[in-house]
Amino acid sequence: MNQAKDCSGMTIWFTGLSGAGKTTISQVVERALTSEGYKIEKLDGDIVRQFLTKDLGFSKADRDENLRRISFVANLLTRNGVIVLVSAISPYRDIRAEIRQNIGQFIEVYVNASLETCEKRDVKGLYRKARANEIKNFTGIDDPYEPPLNPEVTCYTDCESVDESAAKVIKYLKQRIPPNLIQKLFKRTDLVAS
Amino acid sequence: MNQAKDCSGMTIWFTGLSGAGKTTISQVVERALTSEGYKIEKLDGDIVRQFLTKDLGFSKADRDENLRRISFVANLLTRNGVIVLVSAISPYRDIRAEIRQNIGQFIEVYVNASLETCEKRDVKGLYRKARANEIKNFTGIDDPYEPPLNPEVTCYTDCESVDESAAKVIKYLKQRIPPNLIQKLFKRTDLVAS
Repeated sequence: MNQAKDCSGMTIWFTGLSGAGKTTISQVVERALTSEGYKIEKLDGDIVRQFLTKDLGFSKADRDENLRRISFVANLLTRNGVIVLVSAISPYRDIRAEIRQNIGQFIEVYVNASLETCEKRDVKGLYRKARANEIKNFTGIDDPYEPPLNPEVTCYTDCESVDESAAKVIKYLKQRIPPNLIQKLFKRTDLVAS
Repeated sequence: MNQAKDCSGMTIWFTGLSGAGKTTISQVVERALTSEGYKIEKLDGDIVRQFLTKDLGFSKADRDENLRRISFVANLLTRNGVIVLVSAISPYRDIRAEIRQNIGQFIEVYVNASLETCEKRDVKGLYRKARANEIKNFTGIDDPYEPPLNPEVTCYTDCESVDESAAKVIKYLKQRIPPNLIQKLFKRTDLVAS
């Protein structure tokens, strides 16, 4: 693969407990940026497991391998000018640091909600199963979550609305990249022929 | 993931026996197109196995899964305006047809060399090992290769030079896409700020 980095996009990496709101916020960010004409791809942990990593379980080694594959794809897209939205629990600090270094253009968004809140929401019914010992290695219950020490953005979904959280992410993204660069790199309208 | 297809690149898929010249030709194509400013990514079967598919062996099911993962990544890049060069033996017709359909913008390059030629070259020493039964399921020896029935380009590397083969691929690619579209979609010089 070529190493050209001069047409770089950005990876926005949403980390947090199951049920914290990672996917929900990233969907709102996706819609907003898509409607403005940006090139976006969403790599959702659950979906990626279907296509790239269905062989993997939830041990630390398997979680790390899962994230390395997502990172490999995110990196390819990022260096070709795409804004990549990754939603993945990604509980371990060391692998997140490794991914940050590999991708370079990396924004870590900590989707922060208390375990109590996430368990109360329990959208997928997974906390109930984990408490009943029907699922093992469940982050927050019998597997650790290591919060980011210095994330670029933190969304407090215990008390913020989804739109408020999404707005913080978009605001940070737009501050990070000079507007003329955004214009040149990402605007789909620049790229469509005819 | 969004389904927008309006900024589509192209996947050029090199299929053929081990030692036929897939990677060598794709490297020359890569250099030529990169020097003209196009956005290129190379997904080489062997490299992808390190990053995305190291869990997989060489049964038909594993080969198919390997190619589906490559295809997933190629598709993401292609729909974001990248020219993706895939080199993979990809011996089965059915999975190549499936990938063609999924990606849409798909050029199949049959890198055609006789088994005799490939075995004589034996760059990686794999034919010798396969003949000695040290490797199982080796395409061309104890595993089938199903040649493309209607590839967009065929390179006859028994008798063509690498440069001749690469030139055929590049010529076809440029015929396939109107020059103004190439200009708008792929030229990195359009995309770099400053």
